[in-house]
Amino acid sequence: MVKYPIKKTQTNQTRTSVANRGMDLEEAINQTNQFYIDNDVAYIYKKPIPIQVVKVDYERRSAAKISEAYYKVPSTTDYNGLYKGRYIDFEAKETRTKTSFPLKNIHPHQVIHLHNVIRHGGIGFVIVHFTLLGRSFLLDASYLVDFYERGKTGRKSIELSEFETYGHELKEAYVKRLDYLSIVDQVYFK
Amino acid sequence: MVKYPIKKTQTNQTRTSVANRGMDLEEAINQTNQFYIDNDVAYIYKKPIPIQVVKVDYERRSAAKISEAYYKVPSTTDYNGLYKGRYIDFEAKETRTKTSFPLKNIHPHQVIHLHNVIRHGGIGFVIVHFTLLGRSFLLDASYLVDFYERGKTGRKSIELSEFETYGHELKEAYVKRLDYLSIVDQVYFK
Repeated sequence: MVKYPIKKTQTNQTRTSVANRGMDLEEAINQTNQFYIDNDVAYIYKKPIPIQVVKVDYERRSAAKISEAYYKVPSTTDYNGLYKGRYIDFEAKETRTKTSFPLKNIHPHQVIHLHNVIRHGGIGFVIVHFTLLGRSFLLDASYLVDFYERGKTGRKSIELSEFETYGHELKEAYVKRLDYLSIVDQVYFK
Repeated sequence: MVKYPIKKTQTNQTRTSVANRGMDLEEAINQTNQFYIDNDVAYIYKKPIPIQVVKVDYERRSAAKISEAYYKVPSTTDYNGLYKGRYIDFEAKETRTKTSFPLKNIHPHQVIHLHNVIRHGGIGFVIVHFTLLGRSFLLDASYLVDFYERGKTGRKSIELSEFETYGHELKEAYVKRLDYLSIVDQVYFK
């Protein structure tokens, strides 16, 4: 293990404050994915963020500078890759509400994307982290699609109790920060 | 079929000139992928280009403007998705040389990425288009890895004759512009 200098440890402590839990989820997943890669368990990686480039300066040939660009609405998810020979794809989201996950946090294109993934035989899900509760759930994309459809005419969120019923709670640990593949094993490879 | 106005047809004709063949390969693949999606044959899509964002202006809340950013060296490939339940992943490259494909056209990280893909049970390959010959080949990632290894001490390119021996030639067509899945069927699903 790497021994952190004192300053770094302080940064880590700050990071666990409620205000920064957001960054923590992504970091927990990134660290977990790196653990999976280092130990050759799976090959799952983060996709680049989609950006619309408008203007590029070619003053220096070695490093073209993008001087005007905008974030695009994501049409796919954050993570994908391979586990035990299967395609795996998921989005990680968090919410500060305590009783439900608002569906506006997920873009329609991402729901369609995950639907396409499972229709074509892949494993697709969302990981939702309730920051104020400190609880995380894995929810299969088929349920996400159903709840999203329901949201068109009815409730525009997924209840915490629905995550408890249809999802699978993830536990945060030290080395494998958010060992979601142990749950994937139970749900998709049993 | 969509009937193009005259102006559009002229643009298409210009596009087939040698100088613009580069754009044509990407466009041929994008059009083919769209055909696969529209006909529910496969779900294969282009990943965003990786960009390192340095500075963002938040003057207007609605559209944060990225005012300084740089293209990153790609660590993965251009395309991935699902076909017949399997993970599929590839990079598309072209060369203006007539007798070989220089390996410097592919980043080391992309070779490692494709190696990881096949090691974890996915389908991985490169599509190489010889623009001046008008010929395209699909080459399985295992051969790419071998030729890349050879390049560390020896020849830093893959011969056209090696594509003919170890690869599979792709034919350009009208609707399914570059119907690479017909070759994928032969190579990976026979």
